[in-house]
Amino acid sequence: MTKPLFNNLVILGVGLMGGSLALAAKKAGVVGRITGWSRRQSTLDTALEMGVIDSAEANLGKALLNADCVVVATPTQFAEELMIKVLETVAESVVVTDVASVKGNLERAIKNHFGSLPANAVLGHPIAGSEQSGVAAADAGLFTDRRIILIGNDSQQTLALQQAVHLWRAIGASVDVMTAEKHDAVLALTSHLPHFLAYALVVHLAADDTADDIFRYAGGGFRDFTRIAASDPRMWREISLANKSKVVDAVEQFQQHLSVFKQALADDDGQKLESLFAEAKQVRDQFKQHN
Amino acid sequence: MTKPLFNNLVILGVGLMGGSLALAAKKAGVVGRITGWSRRQSTLDTALEMGVIDSAEANLGKALLNADCVVVATPTQFAEELMIKVLETVAESVVVTDVASVKGNLERAIKNHFGSLPANAVLGHPIAGSEQSGVAAADAGLFTDRRIILIGNDSQQTLALQQAVHLWRAIGASVDVMTAEKHDAVLALTSHLPHFLAYALVVHLAADDTADDIFRYAGGGFRDFTRIAASDPRMWREISLANKSKVVDAVEQFQQHLSVFKQALADDDGQKLESLFAEAKQVRDQFKQHN
Repeated sequence: MTKPLFNNLVILGVGLMGGSLALAAKKAGVVGRITGWSRRQSTLDTALEMGVIDSAEANLGKALLNADCVVVATPTQFAEELMIKVLETVAESVVVTDVASVKGNLERAIKNHFGSLPANAVLGHPIAGSEQSGVAAADAGLFTDRRIILIGNDSQQTLALQQAVHLWRAIGASVDVMTAEKHDAVLALTSHLPHFLAYALVVHLAADDTADDIFRYAGGGFRDFTRIAASDPRMWREISLANKSKVVDAVEQFQQHLSVFKQALADDDGQKLESLFAEAKQVRDQFKQHN
Repeated sequence: MTKPLFNNLVILGVGLMGGSLALAAKKAGVVGRITGWSRRQSTLDTALEMGVIDSAEANLGKALLNADCVVVATPTQFAEELMIKVLETVAESVVVTDVASVKGNLERAIKNHFGSLPANAVLGHPIAGSEQSGVAAADAGLFTDRRIILIGNDSQQTLALQQAVHLWRAIGASVDVMTAEKHDAVLALTSHLPHFLAYALVVHLAADDTADDIFRYAGGGFRDFTRIAASDPRMWREISLANKSKVVDAVEQFQQHLSVFKQALADDDGQKLESLFAEAKQVRDQFKQHN
């Protein structure tokens, strides 16, 4: 048997993301053992029963003993405090990473606390998820062929970054390394803005006089379009606030683009409308080919 | 064998919609024979080869001979002229219907031409479709369990309306009768506005500096959200123009709702954001249960 990448992988917050990472890492044979910590004993009980973790520890200090990699996989609003606490506790040889959806705020908080980013801190964000949540929905295949963004300098990878890249690649994910600034700008556009639009569209429709009726006539396109409006409100509150300035900018710039479409229609400018639609279709069709 | 509802169903424009209706009506055994007319001989050839229609007629006048129901299933921009021509040609006992996505403009044009809506004219819109188009994509199951909106007075159904209701129910669709005004208002919100948002979002992202990269990091939510931006630009130009005032209103009102979301975020008002998201989620979850 080859030597595992990490002897003891510690997962803080064994939900959909943490649980899926644990299952995938076990399946790939890259970890010796997995220790789980959670604020809820019931989560730990379920994770143990399901075989997601090898041992459970309700005390954070004890959970971190003998760790050689710690993954913070709690909800966004707890990630900051926990990352700092873990980085204060563990040795510099221990890789400390996370899976939160926004990276700039976390990086700033850690830098503010330590003066600079500790060399063993590797912020990360798997572009994967599900409408489901909780350890019961954990799935060893959740990250297969999905993209994982790790924060750092791709041309000057630290040892900790190299190890984090190794872990994610071993479980079948495709890794990209970029700055927190770029990550947050990209995600504001591809994820946070679409969630705002879907949420706002459903609220807009529900406010209509004919709301009782209106959803009866919605077709498949509407169903697809608004699926993300069923996402967890608390989670999206935290994500939005964590990436506030970029999301506000994205919404404002989108409104300007939408106004161009609206004005073309108001002006009966069919040619302009069609060329805008055609531009979108061309881009979307290219995207489809790669996905 | 029971007597068919229509001895000779004539379909003008044998594409995805017309072809699927033909296949479904045959399968349900509600028509004696089906005659197809198209501007393109190649469409008629394919439709005959596929067994979608029993006979093909490139001459409109000849196609309408002996019809007892005529379905105008051409692209939106040809529906108006063709409906009027057919209503001028056929006897008052012949049901004349269509499948275009906007109804008010068509109703107005017919009323303007004839002084009032002829009793045998039944405007219709199946809330069904596909990203595909053309007769080759015709599918006998396209309308199964889908909603069809027919324009009229539900409590005082004309004979022609009763027959159109019968036809759509026979092929497994669920029929709702309402005014053209209400139809266009509902569709502006549930279909036309979402298409504008999806098209505008893709154009917005493509305009970003990081556009080359950006689509690589788009997840499943984005894929679902923008699927309708791959819809046919020409068709959506025509639909938008046909329902112009209601779509312009819908976009403007949506912008106001979106601004409320944006302002809550700009104000760091997490509580308000979460309650907006939660309202949307509740409505979307209810919609999901019925779909």
